[in-house]
Amino acid sequence: MRLSRYFLPVMKEVPTDTEIVSHQLMVRAGMIKQAASGIYSWMPLGLRVLQKIQNIVTEEQEKAGHIPMLMPTIQPASLWQESGRYDDYGEEMLRIRDRHDRDLLYGPTNEELITDIFRQHIKSYKALPVTLFHIQWKFRDERRPRFGVMRGREFLMKDGYNFDLDFETAIHSYNRHMVSYLRTYNRMGLKAIPMRADTGPIGGKYSHEFLLLADTGESTVFYDDAILKMNFDDTKIDYDNAQECQKIVDSWTNHYARTDETHDQAEFDRLVPNHRQAQSKAIEVGQIFYFGTKYSDPMKATVVDEMGKHIPVHMGSHGIGVSRLVGAIIEASHDSRGIIWPMSVAPFKVGIVSTSSDDKAICQECERLYQECENAGLEPLYDDRNERPGAKFATMELIGIPIRITVGRGLKKGVVELTERANGQTTEVSQSQILNKVIEIVNS
Amino acid sequence: MRLSRYFLPVMKEVPTDTEIVSHQLMVRAGMIKQAASGIYSWMPLGLRVLQKIQNIVTEEQEKAGHIPMLMPTIQPASLWQESGRYDDYGEEMLRIRDRHDRDLLYGPTNEELITDIFRQHIKSYKALPVTLFHIQWKFRDERRPRFGVMRGREFLMKDGYNFDLDFETAIHSYNRHMVSYLRTYNRMGLKAIPMRADTGPIGGKYSHEFLLLADTGESTVFYDDAILKMNFDDTKIDYDNAQECQKIVDSWTNHYARTDETHDQAEFDRLVPNHRQAQSKAIEVGQIFYFGTKYSDPMKATVVDEMGKHIPVHMGSHGIGVSRLVGAIIEASHDSRGIIWPMSVAPFKVGIVSTSSDDKAICQECERLYQECENAGLEPLYDDRNERPGAKFATMELIGIPIRITVGRGLKKGVVELTERANGQTTEVSQSQILNKVIEIVNS
Repeated sequence: MRLSRYFLPVMKEVPTDTEIVSHQLMVRAGMIKQAASGIYSWMPLGLRVLQKIQNIVTEEQEKAGHIPMLMPTIQPASLWQESGRYDDYGEEMLRIRDRHDRDLLYGPTNEELITDIFRQHIKSYKALPVTLFHIQWKFRDERRPRFGVMRGREFLMKDGYNFDLDFETAIHSYNRHMVSYLRTYNRMGLKAIPMRADTGPIGGKYSHEFLLLADTGESTVFYDDAILKMNFDDTKIDYDNAQECQKIVDSWTNHYARTDETHDQAEFDRLVPNHRQAQSKAIEVGQIFYFGTKYSDPMKATVVDEMGKHIPVHMGSHGIGVSRLVGAIIEASHDSRGIIWPMSVAPFKVGIVSTSSDDKAICQECERLYQECENAGLEPLYDDRNERPGAKFATMELIGIPIRITVGRGLKKGVVELTERANGQTTEVSQSQILNKVIEIVNS
Repeated sequence: MRLSRYFLPVMKEVPTDTEIVSHQLMVRAGMIKQAASGIYSWMPLGLRVLQKIQNIVTEEQEKAGHIPMLMPTIQPASLWQESGRYDDYGEEMLRIRDRHDRDLLYGPTNEELITDIFRQHIKSYKALPVTLFHIQWKFRDERRPRFGVMRGREFLMKDGYNFDLDFETAIHSYNRHMVSYLRTYNRMGLKAIPMRADTGPIGGKYSHEFLLLADTGESTVFYDDAILKMNFDDTKIDYDNAQECQKIVDSWTNHYARTDETHDQAEFDRLVPNHRQAQSKAIEVGQIFYFGTKYSDPMKATVVDEMGKHIPVHMGSHGIGVSRLVGAIIEASHDSRGIIWPMSVAPFKVGIVSTSSDDKAICQECERLYQECENAGLEPLYDDRNERPGAKFATMELIGIPIRITVGRGLKKGVVELTERANGQTTEVSQSQILNKVIEIVNS
């Protein structure tokens, strides 16, 4: 992309109505613009990051054998009356009445809708197990939306739903989700720790939240700090192998790690030596639930088992906050100059900066590099505007592009500058080697 | 994908509440399920097609230099009060009140929201021209939703907005949209004819609708049938070249082609010889508008021009019905057995059918072909269920997979069967040649 033809409204000033750094940086980097309280437009740069996160989430779910579909944003109230949640859900549910006075709502989650789909189409145990997921906009009418996309009202979420014949296979589904989530966060450069959590309005007995330690987090968490030393193994995995999944889950959940809602100090003292007891603020980026027959019972989602008996299916639901992750990654990865994107979610991998708009040789070399990076799939952003180099550098740093190529005076001796955003180091690289060097960093 | 692990709830019976063939076939092929009147869940097969269409639309817009972003589904009423459309829009607008009694609405279109973004960020003529687009769910509270996704209430639309300094450059943007739309439909195997149209609630002076001739269409159109003989040229184009775009637009719009709203019989008689005068039913799949300063005037979206004067920008908006296209393509391409997908939007390109689940050699060959097709990016759907071959063939035909490979008795002499959905022809192909043959058809 040529910056002269892009729409990237960056701001120098810190916006006044932003409380946390990710919100500030997203506004300053021209990633989002508020449309109404807790509702945002995703500007071109923001959308690129959002889509990269969405793609990683989708890929990891598909690897786990889960099937993508898409439910609508608007749901009929009748399904929620059937499950008993319509009155329970409270003011966070955005209730709507259409022109024919029928009650609708903007879905905050989709247990009812997916159960309705299941019960209409699946009748036999032979079709199990099945896990369906979608990535769709949700609405929760937060009393006090804040922190930008971290606690918005309209937000993008991946939610998945497993349908299993019994407790044992449902726990395998639960474990599959935990493993696929750990791999998902890992690909985004995040260390998200699964912690035993409260089940809230979703219900059920088993739940883990995934939390990123961060000072700006809204949750307080208690954990054995040995868990921080765990490394995530992203080698090939057989998701059909229940034991293999269970082993990975055990290796994480054997450590004490709980949110304040489930924290038990006596238990903490009993299990964790004092010097390893840690407490921190954290950001929730996902949650998984097993809730058995909580929805399949009232909504009569049954299958016929091998003996010809109708039994309600065992279900769970599993969510990742896709739009929230954009903010969470920034909370975990920024400095005083701006955002530092992990390569996997960077909106552009390489920034190209010319130090002069008048020097023909410099412009030609920038053009050549831009084309080569484009052809190599490196997603370059070429700042071809007639601006001071300092302003161009500041923009590239603010918006967090991992690699910057600067074409300037060195060109006379056949070199350009390569700067890595994460460590700020600049090295001179020959014109003939620069592309290989960039590819090497991108793939590392 | 292995069918045994997929979720594809096909139906033999014709559903009772469907009036047109695309709606019937989408329900029967397990592509959609109604959640509420005019609101649909996209089942896994349906979502695959929807995403392919979305990708083609996005690619063609990006080629034209238009920049993707994403606006939210929920908008504040205040912006619509500013433009004067809040009261005008009538009952089709889904009006919502949040927990703090603030007036919101589910966006039926986005002229106001994009103008608000523009006026906050763009101040100088130097930043022009710019065209932004997004693909987002919209809601129009139709009095009588019907025809499945063809006239739903919640629907996916691409809408784009151009901002230009004057009439002349705005017309170039209009033309760029017309050309990119023609190319978009062409890639989906559709012949959509641009017809002079009424501007309706969007407003403005210039508008063309894109219409597919089809008996089930809701529009009546009048046209010079010479236009049907035009072939779409999809060679490389320079979208920055205003003359080149104008020439293509002229070649289409020089023929009389109008919807009933703009039809003028006297003009028709004057311009088109009687034997070329045609009238037909048609389906609208897109519309483009130039409306000048209709929104930039009341909303004060101005730029400073070269002389330092504040002038309102010239705008247009341009929409493609993404979810509607799924139905429209089926209306244009089906037979008594089911859907016939054009290759570019087919949910799977190749179906693999084993005629026996017991024969080890047959199963092994299916497995080998499945892996090879998967590796070659041919998106195979392998029917590995223990079903009669006839039932498997019927499913592949119903869901419209372009190529079917059948592995059966011929295997003993080293051949498999290749069947093309579009013409029903079956040929025997040797095991060693089948992959090349499939690739040849896919790329043709």
